[in-house]
Amino acid sequence: MLRKDGRKFDQLRQIKITRDFIKHAKGSCLIEFGDTRVICAATFEKAVPLFLKGSGKGWVTAEYGMLPASVQNRIERNKVFSRHAEIKRLIGRSLRSIVDLSALGEKTIKVDCDVIQADGGTRTASIVGGFIALADCFLKLRDEAEIIDIPLKGFLGAISVGIWEGNLILDLNYSEDSSAEVDMNIVMKGDGEIVEIQGTAEKKPFNRDELNEMISLAEKGINEIIEKEKEMFKGSLFNF
Amino acid sequence: MLRKDGRKFDQLRQIKITRDFIKHAKGSCLIEFGDTRVICAATFEKAVPLFLKGSGKGWVTAEYGMLPASVQNRIERNKVFSRHAEIKRLIGRSLRSIVDLSALGEKTIKVDCDVIQADGGTRTASIVGGFIALADCFLKLRDEAEIIDIPLKGFLGAISVGIWEGNLILDLNYSEDSSAEVDMNIVMKGDGEIVEIQGTAEKKPFNRDELNEMISLAEKGINEIIEKEKEMFKGSLFNF
Amino acid sequence: MLRKDGRKFDQLRQIKITRDFIKHAKGSCLIEFGDTRVICAATFEKAVPLFLKGSGKGWVTAEYGMLPASVQNRIERNKVFSRHAEIKRLIGRSLRSIVDLSALGEKTIKVDCDVIQADGGTRTASIVGGFIALADCFLKLRDEAEIIDIPLKGFLGAISVGIWEGNLILDLNYSEDSSAEVDMNIVMKGDGEIVEIQGTAEKKPFNRDELNEMISLAEKGINEIIEKEKEMFKGSLFNF
Amino acid sequence: MLRKDGRKFDQLRQIKITRDFIKHAKGSCLIEFGDTRVICAATFEKAVPLFLKGSGKGWVTAEYGMLPASVQNRIERNKVFSRHAEIKRLIGRSLRSIVDLSALGEKTIKVDCDVIQADGGTRTASIVGGFIALADCFLKLRDEAEIIDIPLKGFLGAISVGIWEGNLILDLNYSEDSSAEVDMNIVMKGDGEIVEIQGTAEKKPFNRDELNEMISLAEKGINEIIEKEKEMFKGSLFNF
Amino acid sequence: MLRKDGRKFDQLRQIKITRDFIKHAKGSCLIEFGDTRVICAATFEKAVPLFLKGSGKGWVTAEYGMLPASVQNRIERNKVFSRHAEIKRLIGRSLRSIVDLSALGEKTIKVDCDVIQADGGTRTASIVGGFIALADCFLKLRDEAEIIDIPLKGFLGAISVGIWEGNLILDLNYSEDSSAEVDMNIVMKGDGEIVEIQGTAEKKPFNRDELNEMISLAEKGINEIIEKEKEMFKGSLFNF
Amino acid sequence: MLRKDGRKFDQLRQIKITRDFIKHAKGSCLIEFGDTRVICAATFEKAVPLFLKGSGKGWVTAEYGMLPASVQNRIERNKVFSRHAEIKRLIGRSLRSIVDLSALGEKTIKVDCDVIQADGGTRTASIVGGFIALADCFLKLRDEAEIIDIPLKGFLGAISVGIWEGNLILDLNYSEDSSAEVDMNIVMKGDGEIVEIQGTAEKKPFNRDELNEMISLAEKGINEIIEKEKEMFKGSLFNF
Repeated sequence: MLRKDGRKFDQLRQIKITRDFIKHAKGSCLIEFGDTRVICAATFEKAVPLFLKGSGKGWVTAEYGMLPASVQNRIERNKVFSRHAEIKRLIGRSLRSIVDLSALGEKTIKVDCDVIQADGGTRTASIVGGFIALADCFLKLRDEAEIIDIPLKGFLGAISVGIWEGNLILDLNYSEDSSAEVDMNIVMKGDGEIVEIQGTAEKKPFNRDELNEMISLAEKGINEIIEKEKEMFKGSLFNF
Repeated sequence: MLRKDGRKFDQLRQIKITRDFIKHAKGSCLIEFGDTRVICAATFEKAVPLFLKGSGKGWVTAEYGMLPASVQNRIERNKVFSRHAEIKRLIGRSLRSIVDLSALGEKTIKVDCDVIQADGGTRTASIVGGFIALADCFLKLRDEAEIIDIPLKGFLGAISVGIWEGNLILDLNYSEDSSAEVDMNIVMKGDGEIVEIQGTAEKKPFNRDELNEMISLAEKGINEIIEKEKEMFKGSLFNF
Repeated sequence: MLRKDGRKFDQLRQIKITRDFIKHAKGSCLIEFGDTRVICAATFEKAVPLFLKGSGKGWVTAEYGMLPASVQNRIERNKVFSRHAEIKRLIGRSLRSIVDLSALGEKTIKVDCDVIQADGGTRTASIVGGFIALADCFLKLRDEAEIIDIPLKGFLGAISVGIWEGNLILDLNYSEDSSAEVDMNIVMKGDGEIVEIQGTAEKKPFNRDELNEMISLAEKGINEIIEKEKEMFKGSLFNF
Repeated sequence: MLRKDGRKFDQLRQIKITRDFIKHAKGSCLIEFGDTRVICAATFEKAVPLFLKGSGKGWVTAEYGMLPASVQNRIERNKVFSRHAEIKRLIGRSLRSIVDLSALGEKTIKVDCDVIQADGGTRTASIVGGFIALADCFLKLRDEAEIIDIPLKGFLGAISVGIWEGNLILDLNYSEDSSAEVDMNIVMKGDGEIVEIQGTAEKKPFNRDELNEMISLAEKGINEIIEKEKEMFKGSLFNF
Repeated sequence: MLRKDGRKFDQLRQIKITRDFIKHAKGSCLIEFGDTRVICAATFEKAVPLFLKGSGKGWVTAEYGMLPASVQNRIERNKVFSRHAEIKRLIGRSLRSIVDLSALGEKTIKVDCDVIQADGGTRTASIVGGFIALADCFLKLRDEAEIIDIPLKGFLGAISVGIWEGNLILDLNYSEDSSAEVDMNIVMKGDGEIVEIQGTAEKKPFNRDELNEMISLAEKGINEIIEKEKEMFKGSLFNF
Repeated sequence: MLRKDGRKFDQLRQIKITRDFIKHAKGSCLIEFGDTRVICAATFEKAVPLFLKGSGKGWVTAEYGMLPASVQNRIERNKVFSRHAEIKRLIGRSLRSIVDLSALGEKTIKVDCDVIQADGGTRTASIVGGFIALADCFLKLRDEAEIIDIPLKGFLGAISVGIWEGNLILDLNYSEDSSAEVDMNIVMKGDGEIVEIQGTAEKKPFNRDELNEMISLAEKGINEIIEKEKEMFKGSLFNF
């Protein structure tokens, strides 16, 4: 049996990544998961927020926005959405988990994730695209001698899983997401350790067996994503 | 070995609940988990948000705030915190998971959670206190013949767990929370099913065994909380 | 003849003060005038506003807020009310009138008054509770050697009086306040001198005889309040 | 002995009123008390705020603003000042005290008071100018057959008094106001009854004898102002 | 002699248009003038602003935004820029000039122009891209039978011209724009009539001869743009 | 044939200028073009915006506002209008075009233009009144030895022209402006060079002949305005 868009239950949507999408950013990409398209751009500042001044540590933070026409019913420009606040905090924490902030030194990287077209999974696409923009930003900074080593602790992947009409599915699109019983976003490092897990079951709570199956399915998807990242940064990012 | 505040690793802080704390709210309580104190108040409106008009369904939503002096360093009044936006969405989803919105009909319950004094775990205290305020609100509405049956699908509990200096601990206070390697909030129904799981490992990712142990520890704590709720609502809420 | 709540015309509501209500504030209390309950918390900063920099003088300022469910019809969180702006300015001026700002030195005390439950007289309750929080803050600062002497010039009391159905009444509750012909708030020092007088007669103007009677009645009420304060701070605040 | 600007202690500044100053308003004036100049404009709407819908009663409300260059140190445009909120509420209450809102019917009059040049006493100038704009608005509305009778209950005057270097003075200018020990604003009807009294003694509290002397002095000043109003509206406003 | 980027003085940058760029919008495109890239999206509502209700006329309006990383120095998200307000009004007026609002009927088209990457000329690129999105929106609405005829009165083109180091140049990029003596934006219909002309000479005023030369140069550039539009909409938009 | 207000097609409205209108501003005036009345006030600060720090150059900027009752239908106080943003930028650019910012040195002049009564042409009246306030501000600063020479490069005039019912007209009032086919604002220096040209033809585009005729008519009007300015500043501003 297949899903409405023809995918198998454990199949990712087609992923497309266009690096160096924005010339003014140190690192950037357009990332596409099916019809979901997000521009991720990492910019750099030689300063840190107040709470880190004098600490010798750097900071990585993220912002998340949607173009007004990126969704079915146009959203108001500049309106403050509490959902966006929640998402930008998730992206920021996830990216920080694989950065060695002490090695970065007192510098701040801002990663802007702007959704151009939304079709489900924008937050996990933003994490993956944000990781790529961040990695490219670090490579550029090393070229410019702003940093000596790449302060990354590993690869980072993220995907959504869910239970939809009783079936476990991977990488939900908008139509699946809005009718799923359970929706879970998982962020993992390249070594399989969990960085963030956010499961929501407003409609139908789940038990621990279902939780374990969902994590396994997510792990499979994240592995595929991280393979793509490894391919992309072969020879440049880590010695492997 | 004990924690700094003398608790065992798997021990909850002392929980104190004062029902009917605010006379203008249909349901309310002051909930205390150790030094964390939150006022939860459920108010009622005979209207629903636009997206539910004509659906026959009701709505439950939450808000979260902190008094300026509730924390160590006074916070600015009326400042918008993205962290608060994230928390209010979590509380709202959690409460909706145990409400039968169709049975409620086109009515809205707003649950305000205001932190009077913060010492870690304010979001899980808000969910538990919010559940109690909501239940009391429904009991009052039934007395006032606004509703016929109590539209609740079960009890609701929430607690934080974490890994701190390598130890699994339950119900983190502020000092533990700010130095923990992993911080996880879990919301469960009375039957042990999971409603929300939010695990964050900005400092040190965790593996699946650790995840399972954390969930087991949370389950233990939530069971104790739900026992308190059952005691409190004996004879009034469910027939058990 | 008695009032609806059984009080005599010149009788205060029951006053209850719980000191040290918030552990993170230098001084704090929960003050209750009947069903009116306000949390007052004084916090301390080693800095002054721009206009006092270099003057050697300190500053005392107040803020005033209401929890959404503190009133009969829930009020919107974070909404800006011009009435609150008016009240916070009154509280701030009243508190400054009994502080020796030069003796305080270049430090700022912020007194947050947050109404938990409103039933009339929240601004005068805030002034009395604010005075107590401020006094406790000064005592704590002296213990911490931040200041040498307590920079207070006297006790401070405040109460409302009004004309209601033709009768002069003391300490109006909400139901009296909303139907009173005249509503007056008076702030006095312990020696009977007037610090603030604000009389409003939107419904029915008053003559000078009525004004004098109202002030005498307020004086009686304020004396009782100041007696309570003296009892509370016996041996600690002034030598008397 | 005279004041710095040559006035006697009980002397008003020169008052100048230019009626019909703004052609788009139903009633308007430029009012000047010495160098204090305020534009007052009354506009009319056939609607009332929500809380009066269906009550048959009208509403009168005021707003208060200052042009950026109206004061010594330019103030930021559109900045929200809590002092302005306090003043607009005072003006609104004062004006409503002499309007028969039932006779007005479900209509709203907004009185905008904009300070063009400030030199002390802007709030009392706004009340006097606001009264004149309001009266002219009512006369115009009667001409346009929007109302049948003028819904005014009397004349309205307002002035400041204070204690400055130990002397009781009338109608304080900015330099006096900023160094006065006591500052009091009084609003009275034409018959001498008090509508509003707001006395502030942040610097030096006052006793009841001083209060009585201040009120007597204010009464003298207000009588002079009301004489001007009577002259101005002779034959048009009341039958006297 | 050539410009720094190798173009002749009267040469446009390379223009690239990708239609149907955003699936949720009725009409949309990605428009590129050299390194300037703007997403234009036209969305549709069956309602008009208040001032047009009952008029039988429709409305076309535009909004303009920039992604934070679209410029050299990252701009703050959601900050309100008065420059953007000026630009969105220009785009809106330009688009309305070629729409028959009566033929459209009581419907509103919103055209969002979001700059992905900025390199000068974003406002004229937005007008051209906005025209294309609008035209495609009308074609889609006709297919959906929301409208019968395409309510367009002609093609629309826009370009900047300027005087730079004494030379007249066409289609300024950012580096030219920021050092030009005169900067002019011209919007023309397909028949050569002028819809908007905005010339700014903060650095060095210009005379009428220079004005005429600039308009002639703009006309040349706009003609080339309109040729592209005609090619693009051949057979679909107008009968020509 | 004459216009509705009796003027000839090429006739300005009556212009009235009252200098030194606001005592707290370095330079100020009330400027009237018929029923359009604007207060312009120039204030001075010994600081420049961030982007000019250390450049040795000064800055001139403008703000534009309207009193709530300045228009037919009262506008909301403090509401942000994108039209106002557009206008304040035009005024600022126009004023800067005749100031030698290097000669001014690191100082900022803010010119506030506040419309007291609007009847068309408020932006051009603001530019003319702003020029006068600015010139008076410079004269005062020279008297106070803040500057040595007047950093002005010439006189500045501004006027609107338009096509109305097929006729070219000068200095449109509100009723003409709101029904004109074309509306153009032109700002010129005393030597006839163009500083700003903004032509808008939302209703009916215009050709280049019409453009030239409009500029000639504007030039005639601006010459008359500049004659007035020369008269006003005779002997004080330039040596002529």
